[in-house]
Amino acid sequence: MMRRLDTRSATFADDFAALLAIQRELSEDVTAAVAEIIAAVKATGDAALADYTKRFDRLDLSTMPVRVSAEEIAAARGAVSDEALDALAFAARRIAAFHERQMPRDERFTDASGATLGWRWTPLSSVGLYVPGGRAAYPSSLLMNAVPAKVAGVGRLVMVVPAPDGVLPPIVLAAAELAGVDEIYRVGGAQAVAALAFGTETIRPVDKIVGPGNAYVAAAKRQVFGSVGIDMVAGPSEVVVVADRTADPDVTAADLLAQAEHDEAAQSVLITDDAGFADAVAAAVEAQLETLPRREVAAASWRDNGAIILVGALQEAVALVDRIAPEHLELAVADPETLAGKITHAGAIFLGTMTPEAIGDYVAGPNHVLPTSRSARFSSGLSTLDFMKRTTLLGIDRGALDALAGPAMALAAAEGLDAHRLSIAKRIGR
Amino acid sequence: MMRRLDTRSATFADDFAALLAIQRELSEDVTAAVAEIIAAVKATGDAALADYTKRFDRLDLSTMPVRVSAEEIAAARGAVSDEALDALAFAARRIAAFHERQMPRDERFTDASGATLGWRWTPLSSVGLYVPGGRAAYPSSLLMNAVPAKVAGVGRLVMVVPAPDGVLPPIVLAAAELAGVDEIYRVGGAQAVAALAFGTETIRPVDKIVGPGNAYVAAAKRQVFGSVGIDMVAGPSEVVVVADRTADPDVTAADLLAQAEHDEAAQSVLITDDAGFADAVAAAVEAQLETLPRREVAAASWRDNGAIILVGALQEAVALVDRIAPEHLELAVADPETLAGKITHAGAIFLGTMTPEAIGDYVAGPNHVLPTSRSARFSSGLSTLDFMKRTTLLGIDRGALDALAGPAMALAAAEGLDAHRLSIAKRIGR
Repeated sequence: MMRRLDTRSATFADDFAALLAIQRELSEDVTAAVAEIIAAVKATGDAALADYTKRFDRLDLSTMPVRVSAEEIAAARGAVSDEALDALAFAARRIAAFHERQMPRDERFTDASGATLGWRWTPLSSVGLYVPGGRAAYPSSLLMNAVPAKVAGVGRLVMVVPAPDGVLPPIVLAAAELAGVDEIYRVGGAQAVAALAFGTETIRPVDKIVGPGNAYVAAAKRQVFGSVGIDMVAGPSEVVVVADRTADPDVTAADLLAQAEHDEAAQSVLITDDAGFADAVAAAVEAQLETLPRREVAAASWRDNGAIILVGALQEAVALVDRIAPEHLELAVADPETLAGKITHAGAIFLGTMTPEAIGDYVAGPNHVLPTSRSARFSSGLSTLDFMKRTTLLGIDRGALDALAGPAMALAAAEGLDAHRLSIAKRIGR
Repeated sequence: MMRRLDTRSATFADDFAALLAIQRELSEDVTAAVAEIIAAVKATGDAALADYTKRFDRLDLSTMPVRVSAEEIAAARGAVSDEALDALAFAARRIAAFHERQMPRDERFTDASGATLGWRWTPLSSVGLYVPGGRAAYPSSLLMNAVPAKVAGVGRLVMVVPAPDGVLPPIVLAAAELAGVDEIYRVGGAQAVAALAFGTETIRPVDKIVGPGNAYVAAAKRQVFGSVGIDMVAGPSEVVVVADRTADPDVTAADLLAQAEHDEAAQSVLITDDAGFADAVAAAVEAQLETLPRREVAAASWRDNGAIILVGALQEAVALVDRIAPEHLELAVADPETLAGKITHAGAIFLGTMTPEAIGDYVAGPNHVLPTSRSARFSSGLSTLDFMKRTTLLGIDRGALDALAGPAMALAAAEGLDAHRLSIAKRIGR
């Protein structure tokens, strides 16, 4: 049964702590199995990749090249409806336009000492994109990862996607083509991550691996981190909806269920200052669950992880939201801007009763890859910056060296690093 | 014996691959020991912290409060020479000035659909800074981590530093005061990392942990990652010096030794187009090693990991540098800007013969915490951004919703997420 909390209850502090403490993630320990797969791919490359693909995906790579051909991609495009293709193109354009605004600027300046300082941003040379297989192969997630990489200027964007029984969803290939993916390989799991990290005879290695995946993929990303970069390892999705009586209970219920239908581990929380509204939303959730196609998933999520928190005044929501640090925060209130200005921790904020999270999930432009499980306290959603790196620059002449040498040599001496001191002293003849 | 390579040699490809493959890091497996320490601190807080501190640092925390007092800090300041204090203040000012330029801008715009989009940067609320103990307690590293955090606006900057036998270097406390550290605790090791991540009775938890440490500290950071953010786990330091005959061999030798003296695992590589210059540098290294205080460390590093690569033309250095992706790159050549413009992968570039890395290590302003072990391919040095996070913002009204609803609902339908579709449809009466 979904939890009901009330800030005016004597047990609220404990109730809220219990809500925060819900363990939503299964911690399946696949570390050893994944380590074995990675070692095999490192040792025998394509042969290991083929073995695991036969075993896990029932696909014989001797009957079909591992790389997806241009002809297959064209055929996939032809198999997708014009409406879906147009929607993907619309989304890709808007995602690109938003992420272009995140392009960082280089800096170069000369300071009073005469030193020239600055930095330069460059795109990563190559990026691997993991796309989950089967029903979890969401084309929207593909766009959210691939489009920012291409906006950043990544030269070689390599996608891996498992093809269980040899089948790839046409819409995934169509989305990859639209996003400008350069190479597509029909492999998945830890073996695909290992191939991206260390390379095989047919797949050249990449510098960073991004994209969602199951426990094996997540463990593999953790294990190859260091050899290559990785994005964050995402947990189950979550939304907090703060609503006052200006919101519509039926609409609010749909927003809560849109999160709940993702996954039984997803979490939907409503915070409201209106007890009648809270009851109406709870009833609307139950009513909508009756006919929802994914009702089993959504009902389990709402039952196990869902909550309605009644507050005495809307201002109380601020501290609660910051404790939760939600991935998504909907402010379905009369004055969302004022409330938004007081929130410190949230991955993305959706302002006002006419802004469903689903618009942001698909077409608004901001990235839908966002920090989960309270990590919005210390991290941000995916952005153009995740596909770039910064090199700092320093140039000094003899005059600037004279100005900076004294304190630098004093610190080198204090740290007992004499060669550091000498590398300066020898230049200025001391 | 330090390696000599020549791009015109028949074995160069193999020689260079062997250079890249040197294992410089000891992979001490402390995973299980660290997991036990973290579990103990989580379970019993201050009691476990005191136990481990007694065992590892020979310090009885019942005789001395875990928090370092204002009086101790003032006394430490009094024990440091004016020259060193002035040098620290000089460095802190320059680091702050450089990192202020990295403050990101918020964005807010309304697009053609009528949607309001943007993002907001906010500082992390609290950050923990690990400072190694004993001789590795470098005040310059403390400034490089703490000053950017304060520039970013971190409200609560908490430092932990082990005090073996109860002793803390005065210059470390003085540097912490200068940098604006808010709380200092005399604990270290995995137990201090656990205390920062999960809190104890006396140490409130933080949102992110940064700073260098030994194998236990690195393993502890990896294990608490997710509950809190962490910075990159740094490997041994390295420099590539590209020099032509305009450089001074004796000065170049000092630059190579400045890196080598850090650590036996450090790496110094010279790339030059002049065989006579290469010989002169090799001889100068040997000569300087005779009198260098840290000659045992520097000689071991140079012998095991050092290299001189002779190239036919300076342009060949570009591809080699990009394969190495060095943490530090000195371009001690007549035209450093042209060469720098061709380099893709480097943490920091030092331009020209008058720019020793040591100036950047201490006082120039750019951060000296930089990506090691080829990770400059996919990551950047520490910056103001590492102490901030971004919240994206989206607000739409009925008009914008009408413009965006169709493609969003089409994608929701394609992904089989009906509650997503409904959350939009219910708002527009479809």
